[in-house]
Amino acid sequence: MFNEDHEDFRRTIRAFLESEVVPNYQEWYDAGQVSRDLYKKVGDLGVFGIEVPEEYGGAGIESFKFSAVLTEECARAGVNLGGSGVHVELCLPYLLKLGTPEQLHRWMPGFISGEEMWAIAMTEPGTGSDLAGMQTTAKRDGDHYVLNGAKTFITGGVLADRVIVCARTSPPLESNRRFGISLFAVDTKSPGWAVGRKLDKLGLRTSDTAELSFTDVMVPASDLLGEENEGFTYLGQNLPQERLGIAYGAYAQAAAAIRFTQAYVEDRKVFGTTVASFQNTKFELAACQSEVDAAQAVCDRALEAHDLGELTAVDAASAKLFCTEVAGRVIDRCLQLHGGYGYMNEYPIARLYADTRVTRIYGGTSEVMKLIIAKSMGL
Amino acid sequence: MFNEDHEDFRRTIRAFLESEVVPNYQEWYDAGQVSRDLYKKVGDLGVFGIEVPEEYGGAGIESFKFSAVLTEECARAGVNLGGSGVHVELCLPYLLKLGTPEQLHRWMPGFISGEEMWAIAMTEPGTGSDLAGMQTTAKRDGDHYVLNGAKTFITGGVLADRVIVCARTSPPLESNRRFGISLFAVDTKSPGWAVGRKLDKLGLRTSDTAELSFTDVMVPASDLLGEENEGFTYLGQNLPQERLGIAYGAYAQAAAAIRFTQAYVEDRKVFGTTVASFQNTKFELAACQSEVDAAQAVCDRALEAHDLGELTAVDAASAKLFCTEVAGRVIDRCLQLHGGYGYMNEYPIARLYADTRVTRIYGGTSEVMKLIIAKSMGL
Amino acid sequence: MFNEDHEDFRRTIRAFLESEVVPNYQEWYDAGQVSRDLYKKVGDLGVFGIEVPEEYGGAGIESFKFSAVLTEECARAGVNLGGSGVHVELCLPYLLKLGTPEQLHRWMPGFISGEEMWAIAMTEPGTGSDLAGMQTTAKRDGDHYVLNGAKTFITGGVLADRVIVCARTSPPLESNRRFGISLFAVDTKSPGWAVGRKLDKLGLRTSDTAELSFTDVMVPASDLLGEENEGFTYLGQNLPQERLGIAYGAYAQAAAAIRFTQAYVEDRKVFGTTVASFQNTKFELAACQSEVDAAQAVCDRALEAHDLGELTAVDAASAKLFCTEVAGRVIDRCLQLHGGYGYMNEYPIARLYADTRVTRIYGGTSEVMKLIIAKSMGL
Amino acid sequence: MFNEDHEDFRRTIRAFLESEVVPNYQEWYDAGQVSRDLYKKVGDLGVFGIEVPEEYGGAGIESFKFSAVLTEECARAGVNLGGSGVHVELCLPYLLKLGTPEQLHRWMPGFISGEEMWAIAMTEPGTGSDLAGMQTTAKRDGDHYVLNGAKTFITGGVLADRVIVCARTSPPLESNRRFGISLFAVDTKSPGWAVGRKLDKLGLRTSDTAELSFTDVMVPASDLLGEENEGFTYLGQNLPQERLGIAYGAYAQAAAAIRFTQAYVEDRKVFGTTVASFQNTKFELAACQSEVDAAQAVCDRALEAHDLGELTAVDAASAKLFCTEVAGRVIDRCLQLHGGYGYMNEYPIARLYADTRVTRIYGGTSEVMKLIIAKSMGL
Repeated sequence: MFNEDHEDFRRTIRAFLESEVVPNYQEWYDAGQVSRDLYKKVGDLGVFGIEVPEEYGGAGIESFKFSAVLTEECARAGVNLGGSGVHVELCLPYLLKLGTPEQLHRWMPGFISGEEMWAIAMTEPGTGSDLAGMQTTAKRDGDHYVLNGAKTFITGGVLADRVIVCARTSPPLESNRRFGISLFAVDTKSPGWAVGRKLDKLGLRTSDTAELSFTDVMVPASDLLGEENEGFTYLGQNLPQERLGIAYGAYAQAAAAIRFTQAYVEDRKVFGTTVASFQNTKFELAACQSEVDAAQAVCDRALEAHDLGELTAVDAASAKLFCTEVAGRVIDRCLQLHGGYGYMNEYPIARLYADTRVTRIYGGTSEVMKLIIAKSMGL
Repeated sequence: MFNEDHEDFRRTIRAFLESEVVPNYQEWYDAGQVSRDLYKKVGDLGVFGIEVPEEYGGAGIESFKFSAVLTEECARAGVNLGGSGVHVELCLPYLLKLGTPEQLHRWMPGFISGEEMWAIAMTEPGTGSDLAGMQTTAKRDGDHYVLNGAKTFITGGVLADRVIVCARTSPPLESNRRFGISLFAVDTKSPGWAVGRKLDKLGLRTSDTAELSFTDVMVPASDLLGEENEGFTYLGQNLPQERLGIAYGAYAQAAAAIRFTQAYVEDRKVFGTTVASFQNTKFELAACQSEVDAAQAVCDRALEAHDLGELTAVDAASAKLFCTEVAGRVIDRCLQLHGGYGYMNEYPIARLYADTRVTRIYGGTSEVMKLIIAKSMGL
Repeated sequence: MFNEDHEDFRRTIRAFLESEVVPNYQEWYDAGQVSRDLYKKVGDLGVFGIEVPEEYGGAGIESFKFSAVLTEECARAGVNLGGSGVHVELCLPYLLKLGTPEQLHRWMPGFISGEEMWAIAMTEPGTGSDLAGMQTTAKRDGDHYVLNGAKTFITGGVLADRVIVCARTSPPLESNRRFGISLFAVDTKSPGWAVGRKLDKLGLRTSDTAELSFTDVMVPASDLLGEENEGFTYLGQNLPQERLGIAYGAYAQAAAAIRFTQAYVEDRKVFGTTVASFQNTKFELAACQSEVDAAQAVCDRALEAHDLGELTAVDAASAKLFCTEVAGRVIDRCLQLHGGYGYMNEYPIARLYADTRVTRIYGGTSEVMKLIIAKSMGL
Repeated sequence: MFNEDHEDFRRTIRAFLESEVVPNYQEWYDAGQVSRDLYKKVGDLGVFGIEVPEEYGGAGIESFKFSAVLTEECARAGVNLGGSGVHVELCLPYLLKLGTPEQLHRWMPGFISGEEMWAIAMTEPGTGSDLAGMQTTAKRDGDHYVLNGAKTFITGGVLADRVIVCARTSPPLESNRRFGISLFAVDTKSPGWAVGRKLDKLGLRTSDTAELSFTDVMVPASDLLGEENEGFTYLGQNLPQERLGIAYGAYAQAAAAIRFTQAYVEDRKVFGTTVASFQNTKFELAACQSEVDAAQAVCDRALEAHDLGELTAVDAASAKLFCTEVAGRVIDRCLQLHGGYGYMNEYPIARLYADTRVTRIYGGTSEVMKLIIAKSMGL
C-alpha cells in the first residue's frame, strides 16, 4: 500500500502533530474550533497542495494515499484538524475538475498555503439531502449573481474564507429535474454573507459547523464554478472519494481506539492486576482487532481502486457502510474497557465515541448507502 | 404498577418540568450544571422528602415508585436534574439506615428542603471500584476525625453541601479485608475541603462531576455515619436500589428516545414524504419498542420486588445489565433515524446518546454485573 | 406465577417425560416423528383436557399456565412432543369458541384422550400468509361440502386424525375482502384426503410437518366450524395466544439451553481445567442469563394478562418478537460454548439450535410482528 | 485475483456440478454421504492433483486459488462434496511436506485419481483440541507399529481409504511437552480398524463424520509420516491454510446465500407484490452484501498472501474469525427473508444455515482465534 514517500510523509506529519497540535489541542477543544493559524502551518507543510497540479503550485500527485496517511496519523494522535478535511478532500476535487485555469491561478496559491480555507455548502434547513428541493437562489444581474438563502451543517463554515455554495439559477426542467443548480465559489467577506450559530454537536468539537445565510450577496460571475445550471451533476461525482475518505477515517479511528485501549488496560490495575490480564479484555480487543483488520482490507482495496480511477459508487458506498459500522461497534467496546475514565473527555476514547457517531450519517447515511447497494443489486 | 397517587405526582412533576426546567435547560446545559436554585424548588415540591419518615418531616412512604415516576418524567421532558438523583436515590438510603435520630433531626430539614444537597464520595483516582485499596484516611483526634485524601467521579460534587465520604479509619484485618473503612457526612464548607476540576464528561452535562481533595479536614465525630470501621459492609447494601434506579433510568431514556424519534420522523420530510412512511423507519421503531417493552417488564418486576423488600442483588444486577444494554441499542438506532439532526445537541436524542452511555459503566460496569450473575449461577 | 397445582402438574409431567419420553426420544428423532402411541399416554395424563369445560369431560380450567409448565418441562428435558402443541394450543381454542354443543360432545372425548389428534391447515403453497388469496374451495352439495385444494406446512399433518381446514366457500365481497372463507373439521380418513410429502425441516424433527391435498373430499355439513364465510375473522382471534405460546416456548428453550450448557462447561475439561472456569464462559452465560431473565419477565407479564383476558394483539406480538430473538441469540452463544459437541445432534443444544430458528418465522414472522407493533404506534 | 486459467477451471467445475452433482444431490443428502463414486469423477477432472508436483503425476501448481474457485462454485451450486475438502486442503499439505519420494510415488496416484481418499484423525473423545493429552498409542514392534485407541469427529472417516492418524509413540519429555506424537498414514482396510458411529450432525449432512477405533492395528513402519515423535510440530504448520480455507468457504457460503435469497424474494409474492419490493428486504440484503464485500476483501488479501507464502498464523486466525462471524449473521438474515420456506431443507438456505454453524467451531473455535489474535497483540 504505502511506499517510502508515504512513510516519509507519515513521519513528517507525526512530528508535526506532536509538536504543533497535541500541545494546543485541549485549548482548541475547549474553544470549539482549532486555531485559524493551524491551517497556515498545515499549508506550510505542503499538505494542501499534494494533489494540486504543478502548474498551479502543487506537487501534482494523483493519489489519495497521502490523505489516508494524514487521516491515520490524526486518529493515532487523537486529534482532528477541523476543516482541513473538507478543504482538501471535499473542495479540491470540485476545484480541479471545474475550475478554469484563470480561477485556479487565482485560487490555488491561497488554497495551498492555507491562507484561504474552503468549505462547501449544500444542505439547507428543511430540505436535507433532497438537493432538488433547494431554496437558495442566485439571480444573474449584469456581471454578478445575487445570492439569497440559507445553508446549514457547514463544516468549517465559521473559519472558511471561501465557500462553494450550491444555488438555484433556473427552475427545474420538466424533462430534467436535476437542471438549474449552479455552484459558486463565494468569498465569505462579501457583504450580506452571515455566519449564524456555530452548531453544538455531539462530537467533532474542534470542527466548526455553522449555519450560513446570504442576503443579496453579490457574487462575481467569474466565481461561477463549472457550467451554469449543471451543478447537480457535478455534486455526485466526488461522492465516491468523499465516502472513501469517511470509510478510511472510520477505520483509522477504530484502529486508534484499539491502541488507546490497549495502552489503558495494560496500565490500569484493579483488584491487584491489570485490566489487560482479564480474559474478557483479551477477547474484546481481539474481536475488535479482527473487525479492524477487515475494515483495513476494505479500505486498502478501495484506496487502490480509487488511485487507479476504478472505485465505483457502489463499492465506495459498501466501504463506507461497513467501516463506519465497524468503527461504531469497536469504539463502543473500547470505551467500555476504560470503565469510568472512558466517559471523560480528557481520554481520547470518549472523544472518539462522540466523533465517530457522525460517520454513519454524513456523506450519506447508512440507509442511503443501503439504497445504493440494493439498487446496484437490481433490487 | 402505578396508582392514583403516583399519577397525581406525575402530573405535578410534568407541570413543574414544563414551567421551571425546560425553559432554563439550555442555559444550564451550556453552563455545565443546573442552577443551585433548582434544588430548592424541587425541595419545595416535596420530592426529596417522600421516603423520609414523618418524624423527620417527610412523607414516610416506603416505595421507590415515586422516584420511578420522576425518572420517567425527566426522560420524557429531555432533562436531567443534576445531582438530585444522587441526593435522593443514593444518599438517602444510607442516611435513613445509618443515621442516628440526632443526626436525622439535624440533617433532614435541609435535605428535604433542598437547602442542603448531598453527594457521596467513594471512588479514588487510581483505585476505581476496588474499595479495599482506598487511600483516603480519617484519623481520630479528640472529638474530630482528620480527613486527608482525594476522590474522583463525584456526581454533584461541585454544588453539594454535604458529602458522604468513605475513608480508612483502621488498617484492614488479616482475617477481614473489609474491615477499617468508615463513612462520614462531611460539610463541604469545612476548611481543607477543595473541589478540584469539574470533569468534562461525554454526557450528563448538567450534572456536575468533580474531583475532591481533603487536606486536614476536621470532621466532628458526630458526623460519623454508622459504626466506625464497618463502612465496607454498608456500601454494598444500597447497591440493588442504586442499580434498579439506573435500570429504570435507562428504560425511561429508551422509551423517551422512541417518543422523540417518532415525533421527528412524522414531521420530517424527505423526497416528498415523511421519514415515518419508510418501512425501514417503521421496522426500526417497532424493534426498539419491543426491546423497551421488555425493559419495562424487567423494571416493573424489579420495582415491585424492591417495594416488597425482595429485590435480590443478582436480580438488580441482571436488570441493570439488560436495561442499559437495551438503552444503548435503542438510542443508537433512534439517533440514526434523525439523520444529521441527531448529531446536534439541540435535539434531545443527541444528548440522550451521550447521557446513556454511562449507564453501562456507573453503579458497576456491565462486566461487574456479569460477574455477579455468574457467581449467583455457581460459575 | 405458579401455585401448588401448577407445581404438582410440573412434577407429574417431569416424571412422565423421564419415564415415557426421554428413553424413546432418540428413536422418534431418527424416525422423524413421535410414536402415535405417545399422544394417548399424554391424553391419559389429562393434559389435553385441562382447558376443556367439565361438561365435555375436561377439567374446565381457563388458564394458559399449565401449558406454560408443560412447555418448560419439555424444554428442560430436551424433548418435543410433536403435534401436541398444535392439538391443544392452536386447535382447542377454535373448537371451544366455535364448536356447537353437538360437535363438542362428539369431538371432545377423542380430543381429550388423545385418540383423535387435531391439526390445522391454513397456509397454501404459493399464497403463504396471504389468507385472502386462498385457493382451496369447499362447495356445498346437499348436506356435504366438496373440498378441493392443497395445503402446506401442516404441523402434525401426518399423524392427525382430524384437521381444521380453511377453504373458500364464497368469492370475496367487494365491500369485504375477508368474506367467504369457512373452517371445516375434516376427518383425515375421508376418501380424497391425501398426505403428501413429510417435509424435511431444519429442525423440529419429531414434529411431522406435511403437505396435504384434497380431491373431492366429502365433508359433512355438520363438520362446518362456526358460521359459513366468516372463517377469516375467526382466524385472527387466537393469534395472541398462539404467539404467547411461541414466546413462552422460545423463553423456555433459551432457559434450557443455559442449563444444558452450564452442565456441559462444568464437566468438560480443556488444558487441565473446566471450560466453566474461563472468564469468557462466565461472561457469556451471565449475559445469556440476563436476556433470559428479561424474556421471563416479558412472558410472565403476558401470561398473567392472558389469563385475565387482557393480552392485546400488540403485546403478544411484542413478546413473540422479543423472546424469539433472545432465544436465537442465547442458543447460538450456548452452542458455541459446547465447541464441536455443540454441532452433534446427540447434544440437546444442537437440536435446540435447529428447533428455535423457526420461532422467528411461524405464527407470523418477526417482520410481521414489527408491522403489528408499528401500526399500534400509529406508524 | 483470478486469471484466465482459474476462470476456465471455474467453467469446468460449474458444468461438472450441474451435470454430475446437482441431479444426485438430494439422494446423497438423504443418505447422509456422497456417493463413493463421486470422488473418482472429481479425480478424473484433475482437481485432486492440482497442487501435486508433476513428478508425482500432478499439475504442480502452488496456489490455493483453484481450491478457492472450487469452494465458490460448490457454494454457488448449493452442494458440498463430502470429504473432498479434507482430502485436498487438509491432508495433501501434510503429504507433500512430510512424505518421502517413495511414499509419494506410492500414494499420489490413488490420491490424484480419487481411488484412495484420505482423511485425518486428531481429536479424541475427551481430549478435544488438547493434543498433548492424546491417548492413542502406536508401539513399535519390529517393522510395524501397533496402533490402539480411538478418535472422533473424523470428517470423511466412513469413506476414507487412508487416514493420517496422530498417536503417541513416546511419553512427553519434561523439557518438551510436545514431544512424542507421531503421524501415520494408515490403511483403513487394516485388521483392527473400526468405523464407529457415523455422527449425526446439525449440518454438513453429505459429509460423513465418524468415530474411529483401533485395536492392535498393524501399521507398517514405512507408513510413518515425517520423523517419529515430531508430529506435534507438524500439526500446527498447516493451520493457516486450513483456516484460510474455512474463511473462504464461509465467505462463499454467505455470498451464495445472498444469491439464493435474491432469487427467492424476486420470485416470491405476498400481498400482491414481490418480497423483493419491500424496503426491509432491500435493506437487509444490502447490509448483507456490504458484509460479504468485506469478507471478500479479507479473503482475497489472505489468499494473495498465502500464495506468496506470507500468510501469518494471526492473519489467518483473524480472517477465519471475521468471515465465519459474517457468514453466521448473513445466512441467518437471508434465511429469515425466506419465511417458512427457509426452514425447509429442500431450500439451500436452510442447509447453509446448518452447515455454516460449524465454521465458527472447527479448525479452531472463534474463542481460540481470539486467543491467537490477543497473543499477537502482546495481551
